[in-house]
Amino acid sequence: MRPHVVIVGAGFGGLTAARKLAGAPVNISLIDRNNYHLFQPLLYQVATAGLEPEQIAKPVRAILRRQANLTFRMTEVTAVDFEAHQLQTADGPLAYDYLVLSVGAETDFLGLADLAEHSLQLKGLSDGVAIRNQVLACFERAAVETEDKDRRRLLTFVIVGAGPTGVEMAGALAELIHLVLVKDYPELDGQIVRIVLVEAQSQLLPGFDESSAESARRTLEAKGVEVMTGVSLVAYRQGLAELGDGGKLAAETLIWGAGVRAEGLARGLSVEHGRQGRVVVEPTLQLPGQPQVYVIGDAAYLEADGQPLPMMAPVAVQMAERTAANIRLAVAGRQPQAFVYRDPGRLATIGRNAAVAEIAGIRFRGFLAWLVWLVVHLVQLIGFRNRLLVLINWAWDYFFYDRAVRLITEDPLRRE
Amino acid sequence: MRPHVVIVGAGFGGLTAARKLAGAPVNISLIDRNNYHLFQPLLYQVATAGLEPEQIAKPVRAILRRQANLTFRMTEVTAVDFEAHQLQTADGPLAYDYLVLSVGAETDFLGLADLAEHSLQLKGLSDGVAIRNQVLACFERAAVETEDKDRRRLLTFVIVGAGPTGVEMAGALAELIHLVLVKDYPELDGQIVRIVLVEAQSQLLPGFDESSAESARRTLEAKGVEVMTGVSLVAYRQGLAELGDGGKLAAETLIWGAGVRAEGLARGLSVEHGRQGRVVVEPTLQLPGQPQVYVIGDAAYLEADGQPLPMMAPVAVQMAERTAANIRLAVAGRQPQAFVYRDPGRLATIGRNAAVAEIAGIRFRGFLAWLVWLVVHLVQLIGFRNRLLVLINWAWDYFFYDRAVRLITEDPLRRE
Repeated sequence: MRPHVVIVGAGFGGLTAARKLAGAPVNISLIDRNNYHLFQPLLYQVATAGLEPEQIAKPVRAILRRQANLTFRMTEVTAVDFEAHQLQTADGPLAYDYLVLSVGAETDFLGLADLAEHSLQLKGLSDGVAIRNQVLACFERAAVETEDKDRRRLLTFVIVGAGPTGVEMAGALAELIHLVLVKDYPELDGQIVRIVLVEAQSQLLPGFDESSAESARRTLEAKGVEVMTGVSLVAYRQGLAELGDGGKLAAETLIWGAGVRAEGLARGLSVEHGRQGRVVVEPTLQLPGQPQVYVIGDAAYLEADGQPLPMMAPVAVQMAERTAANIRLAVAGRQPQAFVYRDPGRLATIGRNAAVAEIAGIRFRGFLAWLVWLVVHLVQLIGFRNRLLVLINWAWDYFFYDRAVRLITEDPLRRE
Repeated sequence: MRPHVVIVGAGFGGLTAARKLAGAPVNISLIDRNNYHLFQPLLYQVATAGLEPEQIAKPVRAILRRQANLTFRMTEVTAVDFEAHQLQTADGPLAYDYLVLSVGAETDFLGLADLAEHSLQLKGLSDGVAIRNQVLACFERAAVETEDKDRRRLLTFVIVGAGPTGVEMAGALAELIHLVLVKDYPELDGQIVRIVLVEAQSQLLPGFDESSAESARRTLEAKGVEVMTGVSLVAYRQGLAELGDGGKLAAETLIWGAGVRAEGLARGLSVEHGRQGRVVVEPTLQLPGQPQVYVIGDAAYLEADGQPLPMMAPVAVQMAERTAANIRLAVAGRQPQAFVYRDPGRLATIGRNAAVAEIAGIRFRGFLAWLVWLVVHLVQLIGFRNRLLVLINWAWDYFFYDRAVRLITEDPLRRE
């Protein structure tokens, strides 16, 4: 009887682990609550009407169809019984010989009242569509609004958190509005639109070099984004954002990207946790005292050079490779090895022809960085068909200054 | 002051009327509850995971951006006051000099208890996505179901109504399941899947020639669809469909396409109605006694050769052309002219290389009819980008026997 490896989560970590165990003498069960793998780095382009949601997601069964030692299950894991070597799922219990928890991260609203209910986030596919619907519905409503005050509130968009996602979101939103929507809504004055990017830390893109951050700030400001650093959000209710410096912003839309923590299943485990609810793991990525259990990706807490490894796709992918190798070693009766992280660098795009890159100690920006960003993301996207459709959409939008996917599939301003 | 033409509905009729009035000495307000025009003839391909929903819809503002005499409003029309020449909308009243009601049709559940709640329909974009989610979720659930009886119920799909939509839906569903999903779910026995097409009339494709209908039936049966004609649905509740001939079908999924009626606004007007709640109009398409009001498309009742004109896109488009011409005549102080329908023929596809066509008195089928169907639909789809993406998807699916869009974006079987 081959050992049973259960992998929870079909994100970058879980999917890589499953693929790297192809041909290994094990039976794999891959579990996810969705039936697809989501390419999260491009989710902000779904939110800004540049890509169809289906183009950045691919069914797990389609990806792994040829892998004979794997079964996929779409279900929710509700608990882990380490003693019994068994998971609880919405479809009953599932026993494991080896367990890989690659459950990812979720938005952390940092305990701010009302924020979870009234703000938008950018984690899952439906979040991207929800932001698209919200932005477009605000423009439709503003077009019929007679009160100047209300029209300005409808056309003020606040993005909190200026990591790569917040910066990319702000840049793409500015281009959607100033290159496309102003032509769609000749009855609206484009001058009253406000896009405000709020960051509690003193620089944009924390983790990047200061010169990259300054470059990103200048590019964003040239696109009409107001950048506020060293300012935190204190509250957001009834369309009013209150800031730490006493400022207030009347905004119908607030996109929250300032807090993230390990996903609920990982935070709920009775084990040692590091910052952001991440599960502390051994250098081999095993759970202390549970050599059959590996925790990887955003849900895992491991330090390198005294710093926690960042919650980024490359970390999850590399951890998954190490974990697959370690399970192969363990099955063969050998000792697992320690994980060594190779930093691939940092990339963030701010829009047309504009990006910042820090790769192999070299910093560059502008058109070249943008081209690198484009190629890296296109190559990493899974599936030739998705790559082709995304490339066509990008080329279309680039040459025609368009964003074709500007449909309101559900009107958030007329919710019953 | 130019006359104000208000067009309600941005389907085939409303959109055509708006375009044909470009350059006319009028101001146009086009109103729709959605911000996009939907190409309904391809909706069944969204339902069967062949196309992304965004590819068969295009924002109205994008379509009509260059038309200077037009304003678009996304809102709901709640009532028409013919005396005051005014509409009530969710955003307040709107006065008109000329009114074009092109509000289309909605599903009619024919008073069957529970049907509206438990069955799926195929009218709007979200309906297409809902069917896709349902079919895929049934397969996911069947893969973990241990009871044979329940697994069979999950994998039985009943389609009621064998007009072009029902036939196209059945053929596409059979191909999705037998060409694609059987490979996705090696743990399931493809033999237990049932697709049942139920039609109350004695032949498939009412309105087509009997030989076309027989050809469609043979093609469907070869694809594994069970075709039942002369049988009506009596009830559907708790996963059990009861038929008029006493038969019962345990089916988790029932797609209802057997009833259609004019949209609520049209049915609610205090005017004379024909069959299916359609508004009786003069030969000029004017509302009797209200020469400023035109009713066109599915919502209008007009007979030709003693038969009511069918609820089909070509009728709506031709009526819209006549209406735009009549409004131009009326504005110039001249008399409106009667509508004359030119029947463009009938087309229905049943799947790969298979269709039936009746054009200009000639009946043909098979590969040639399928090619005609393909070209006609591609040409009628609005927007070069949508055409390109749809063509790529079709080519991909045709050559690779794939349906790439098989994502479950919301699991209907785990609704809370």
